[in-house]
Amino acid sequence: MPGNTFGRILKLTTFGESHGAALGGVLDGCPAGLALCEDDLQRALDLRKPGTGPASTSRREADRVQILSGVFEGVTTGTPIAFSIANTDQRSGDYGNLAQVFRPGHADWTYWNKYNGIRDYRGGGRSSGRETAARVAGGAVAQKLLAARGIAVYAAAVELGGIAVPEAAREMTKSLSRPYFAASDDVVPLWNGAVEAARRDGDTLGGVVQVVVKGAPAGLGEPVFDKISATLAQALMSVGAVKGVEIGEGFAAARLRGSENNDPLIPDLDHPGGAAFESNHAGGILGGMTSGQDIVLRCAVKPIASIPREQRTVDTRGRAATVLIAGRHDLSAIPRIVPVLSAMTALALADALLLQERMGFLA
Amino acid sequence: MPGNTFGRILKLTTFGESHGAALGGVLDGCPAGLALCEDDLQRALDLRKPGTGPASTSRREADRVQILSGVFEGVTTGTPIAFSIANTDQRSGDYGNLAQVFRPGHADWTYWNKYNGIRDYRGGGRSSGRETAARVAGGAVAQKLLAARGIAVYAAAVELGGIAVPEAAREMTKSLSRPYFAASDDVVPLWNGAVEAARRDGDTLGGVVQVVVKGAPAGLGEPVFDKISATLAQALMSVGAVKGVEIGEGFAAARLRGSENNDPLIPDLDHPGGAAFESNHAGGILGGMTSGQDIVLRCAVKPIASIPREQRTVDTRGRAATVLIAGRHDLSAIPRIVPVLSAMTALALADALLLQERMGFLA
Amino acid sequence: MPGNTFGRILKLTTFGESHGAALGGVLDGCPAGLALCEDDLQRALDLRKPGTGPASTSRREADRVQILSGVFEGVTTGTPIAFSIANTDQRSGDYGNLAQVFRPGHADWTYWNKYNGIRDYRGGGRSSGRETAARVAGGAVAQKLLAARGIAVYAAAVELGGIAVPEAAREMTKSLSRPYFAASDDVVPLWNGAVEAARRDGDTLGGVVQVVVKGAPAGLGEPVFDKISATLAQALMSVGAVKGVEIGEGFAAARLRGSENNDPLIPDLDHPGGAAFESNHAGGILGGMTSGQDIVLRCAVKPIASIPREQRTVDTRGRAATVLIAGRHDLSAIPRIVPVLSAMTALALADALLLQERMGFLA
Amino acid sequence: MPGNTFGRILKLTTFGESHGAALGGVLDGCPAGLALCEDDLQRALDLRKPGTGPASTSRREADRVQILSGVFEGVTTGTPIAFSIANTDQRSGDYGNLAQVFRPGHADWTYWNKYNGIRDYRGGGRSSGRETAARVAGGAVAQKLLAARGIAVYAAAVELGGIAVPEAAREMTKSLSRPYFAASDDVVPLWNGAVEAARRDGDTLGGVVQVVVKGAPAGLGEPVFDKISATLAQALMSVGAVKGVEIGEGFAAARLRGSENNDPLIPDLDHPGGAAFESNHAGGILGGMTSGQDIVLRCAVKPIASIPREQRTVDTRGRAATVLIAGRHDLSAIPRIVPVLSAMTALALADALLLQERMGFLA
Repeated sequence: MPGNTFGRILKLTTFGESHGAALGGVLDGCPAGLALCEDDLQRALDLRKPGTGPASTSRREADRVQILSGVFEGVTTGTPIAFSIANTDQRSGDYGNLAQVFRPGHADWTYWNKYNGIRDYRGGGRSSGRETAARVAGGAVAQKLLAARGIAVYAAAVELGGIAVPEAAREMTKSLSRPYFAASDDVVPLWNGAVEAARRDGDTLGGVVQVVVKGAPAGLGEPVFDKISATLAQALMSVGAVKGVEIGEGFAAARLRGSENNDPLIPDLDHPGGAAFESNHAGGILGGMTSGQDIVLRCAVKPIASIPREQRTVDTRGRAATVLIAGRHDLSAIPRIVPVLSAMTALALADALLLQERMGFLA
Repeated sequence: MPGNTFGRILKLTTFGESHGAALGGVLDGCPAGLALCEDDLQRALDLRKPGTGPASTSRREADRVQILSGVFEGVTTGTPIAFSIANTDQRSGDYGNLAQVFRPGHADWTYWNKYNGIRDYRGGGRSSGRETAARVAGGAVAQKLLAARGIAVYAAAVELGGIAVPEAAREMTKSLSRPYFAASDDVVPLWNGAVEAARRDGDTLGGVVQVVVKGAPAGLGEPVFDKISATLAQALMSVGAVKGVEIGEGFAAARLRGSENNDPLIPDLDHPGGAAFESNHAGGILGGMTSGQDIVLRCAVKPIASIPREQRTVDTRGRAATVLIAGRHDLSAIPRIVPVLSAMTALALADALLLQERMGFLA
Repeated sequence: MPGNTFGRILKLTTFGESHGAALGGVLDGCPAGLALCEDDLQRALDLRKPGTGPASTSRREADRVQILSGVFEGVTTGTPIAFSIANTDQRSGDYGNLAQVFRPGHADWTYWNKYNGIRDYRGGGRSSGRETAARVAGGAVAQKLLAARGIAVYAAAVELGGIAVPEAAREMTKSLSRPYFAASDDVVPLWNGAVEAARRDGDTLGGVVQVVVKGAPAGLGEPVFDKISATLAQALMSVGAVKGVEIGEGFAAARLRGSENNDPLIPDLDHPGGAAFESNHAGGILGGMTSGQDIVLRCAVKPIASIPREQRTVDTRGRAATVLIAGRHDLSAIPRIVPVLSAMTALALADALLLQERMGFLA
Repeated sequence: MPGNTFGRILKLTTFGESHGAALGGVLDGCPAGLALCEDDLQRALDLRKPGTGPASTSRREADRVQILSGVFEGVTTGTPIAFSIANTDQRSGDYGNLAQVFRPGHADWTYWNKYNGIRDYRGGGRSSGRETAARVAGGAVAQKLLAARGIAVYAAAVELGGIAVPEAAREMTKSLSRPYFAASDDVVPLWNGAVEAARRDGDTLGGVVQVVVKGAPAGLGEPVFDKISATLAQALMSVGAVKGVEIGEGFAAARLRGSENNDPLIPDLDHPGGAAFESNHAGGILGGMTSGQDIVLRCAVKPIASIPREQRTVDTRGRAATVLIAGRHDLSAIPRIVPVLSAMTALALADALLLQERMGFLA
């Protein structure tokens, strides 16, 4: 209810502030018998480690994860899998001057209003991007669950600073080996230029991330309020910088006609239900349930709000002020947001899969 | 869990198929003491009544709502408010021929797969647009709750068949008195032309609906998974034809720089927190909580899947088939989807408002 | 959250006041393919019909149930099963004089305090025993789900007015054919005498109901907060007149030693897990999960609060008053509470069964 | 859903096995601004520390709690309060011989069946009494929230080994300073004798714990499935050794007549609602909501299942076996269960209080 838990059967509860003792999570509902070790989580966390790309901060976050419970003799036991990541490279001093002002584009103002003036201002507290580390760790377990059923989640940056990878050129499955987790090698030099220009200008960039899920069976998602599209939209929009989510043709569908947007079915004995689709304008979701095609989503990612410029704002007493954010910040949420969006997609789907398994009671 | 309930404190559970005995809902969690009568629900339902606009079906749906519980002597009692809408103008015969084929773009295929071949095929069963009537009835109560706190939800069509109302020309508060619930009078003739052309071509149209919420206090929404943006995305994406949701600048934010997208704060004593914003690129949501500005959302609405043309598909035995959908269908989900999106927005916000902790708890 | 929904996967939401238009419920999460018709619900409702036993009111409640959705061609479709029961034999006039006073032992005072003085006082409003009709109707579906897995719920009165059926003499499976739904024929004459004496004295009686579940597999229930014992305790204690719940030896276990209370296991190849228990002091639940033995529960049922005597109380303005409850009331909640406790047990178990993870998920 | 979370607004999620790295919890939904430090949690944990009484194990559990998040500058921030307790005094070797047999009266058999043979057998894994440490830590926060509203929870042992403290002699508020957390000084010598006898016999004892809540306002709890009585029953029955819960007169109410069991109201201007009750047979709960009187509950606690005797059982291959439980075990769950029951009561009530505050929207 207070919103630090995601999922219904597979439930991830996260905790932790940027500069507290630790952040982490509890993943409840993972079936017993899944092979799991700390390395599985660590590998996923390393993907969102800063400092490895041109758009990254020089801040070092060790992010060593420890599993506290729920795993015995190398497999999950069905009990809650708790994990924590100690906060080590904290320079709270960097943030002390931000205690009394509201940074534009940040959650400072809304936290202040929501919690009656009480706020852990160090590094954004719980609104820090670091909060997503726990999502990534939990998502790593979800990805293993999905993999056990032949389902894989791929995510890639398809646009940065207004420069998009053409749809036909998007190569989703290899993105993790490219700079920016880009959907194409060709775009990398262009994005390098855009990043360089923005850095020179003391500014930041936004972009678009595409997520594709392969291997999901037909029938996941619940038909009304818990459509899988709705659950995925919630999952992805709950990530800080995301300002839009679209499925399949998405906003372009608004400009298509029915005859263009419908996906005809054709007989196909290789497909579980004996049929396949000739096209995938629907993005793999029909009536809120998976159709058995690839699920295709895109997320709009806003530019990082922490810009190295003086900005006008007010202080906590309502007086005009300026703020200059020092600290060490990324120039774009891309690429680090990419594994976060994978993780949220995996959590949403694994939850739907577990829920669906349970619904097939009389089959 | 099975997904026919929306909300946490203010919970709407809906039921009903297109051609069953009735559809309706149970709204649990409405505080005691709200003045409420059947007319409040009926007026909202009448807004989504078919047959009144150029893009509408000639099918008549009486949609008379009856309140079954939870109201006594003209006010809510705090107990569940149940309501039902009898299904009267059902011509099941229109749909009998659809029992054995999967209509492209519809939920037939996914229901079939999810429920092991069991499916109420009459008029789409629960995947019918009629399902949204219960959302609208429940949303009418939510709107009254919001109104009691000075919060109003406005929705309007801002694009149809690729013809958009320019952002500066959008007049949200008067949309309900215009054809198509359009955001401008000027666009109506253009949309009439687009509809006429589509009808001539035996085709259907998509569009975009904008939702604006005025008067929401700062601090609604929970900071992590239950960001108000995430909850709204789920709420809106759970409506059948919606394929994309964006907030504030939305996908355009991906192309802005941080210096363009941040909204500076300025002192403003007329504002509850003593500050206001110079712009609203954020769409009234920062860090997943309302900022006190207008909340601005847009939804991509796909073209109606039922087109009056022969389409290729497969039947339930996996054989190639064609389907020609007779019945009586709208040419676009606009305008009828507009009050549905208002309703879902109102339900999400009223729930967040009730959940928001009382400032005075520890004060 | 506001508490009119029970269950996690199989969720029953109920609505309705004693003297409103109707009461009913929505059962969400029932798998598709269960044969179901109105008679299934009606038969269960008829068991709690008043007017058939020595301890019953002469009030007639038709309680004709109508299924509104979720069933098509004789089977459930996986969508919500809504049902309603019109209120027909209402004599609101009987209750008008109770609008301004709080009946001792009733919920009048607590409703008044909770809902700020707003209250549907007619027949107790939502606190009426009639509220349980919706539980019984929903429970009938749960019992069919359980029966499909070979699980049966039996309930019987084992004590009335202080006269108990000795444990060895309790015959659970035939109770529904006996007066009082008693666990033995022998006790009936004694209970007739107790009822007659109470009626003569203008008083009411309490009792104890035992519930036994046969055929539940081992492993139902979740090990920590959602122990099946905890869920059953909630389910049963949520029924108005229940003031205590115990499992297996229950309160008697407090007086046993470990060596007496432990149930030794013995090899038994006829049993699914290859083992059985020599005794069942645990009541079929170990560590909060079913052991595969019979589940054995008992509920303490308080005497009906509506006694045909003048009682001292206060009115809504805080002044001393007396109240004489006319109306038509049962002399004991037994037998009518018996099918209600069966229904709640069935709902709790069917939910646990659906939740229980499929053994094959990772196998 | 998988059952490691308790509460709706104030949600405690716990994790951890007896012999894993750590156990702990995440308390979500605590309002911002509550003064809180690790000592608050530690003091509560120390109450359930073993080794301090005649019925205790000599095992030493340091149980040092660390707060990981959610507290800043001495007050709660509204974000999740995570805490962990490292497992230090683990002698896994003590338990190795239990990997292949099912201890009678323990959860071994049911875990084995539920989780397909996967089980952390060391010290009972998650079914260990150590699991309750996280409840006690979370409950300490709940007690502080309640105290801020003038509500206090008292628990005391009222019966051990069949020797009860007479109802009139129960002194609830001072129990924490007595051996056994007993409700009276007088009973202590008698209980010492019972414990001595049981120890001599190589056996264990059960008992009864009473819980009394003072200061709760009228109107807490939701009238139907989430009656406060039902929530408390779930909360208390979810503690391992509890086999029965009763409220007010409880099972004795089954033997009272209505005229004896009803509590008359009398005018009382000192009381918030202008009225008080002449008696409290109802145990402070009417119609599932608090009446403003003391809430009075009792829990039946079964004897500890680990007895220092050879017991008959089966092994994991279904063969007859014997088991002799060495290890270090308490002789009775009393007194250590007493603070656990306080904690669960406090969590249930604080949750109901926060939920109720939110319901009073239109007042």
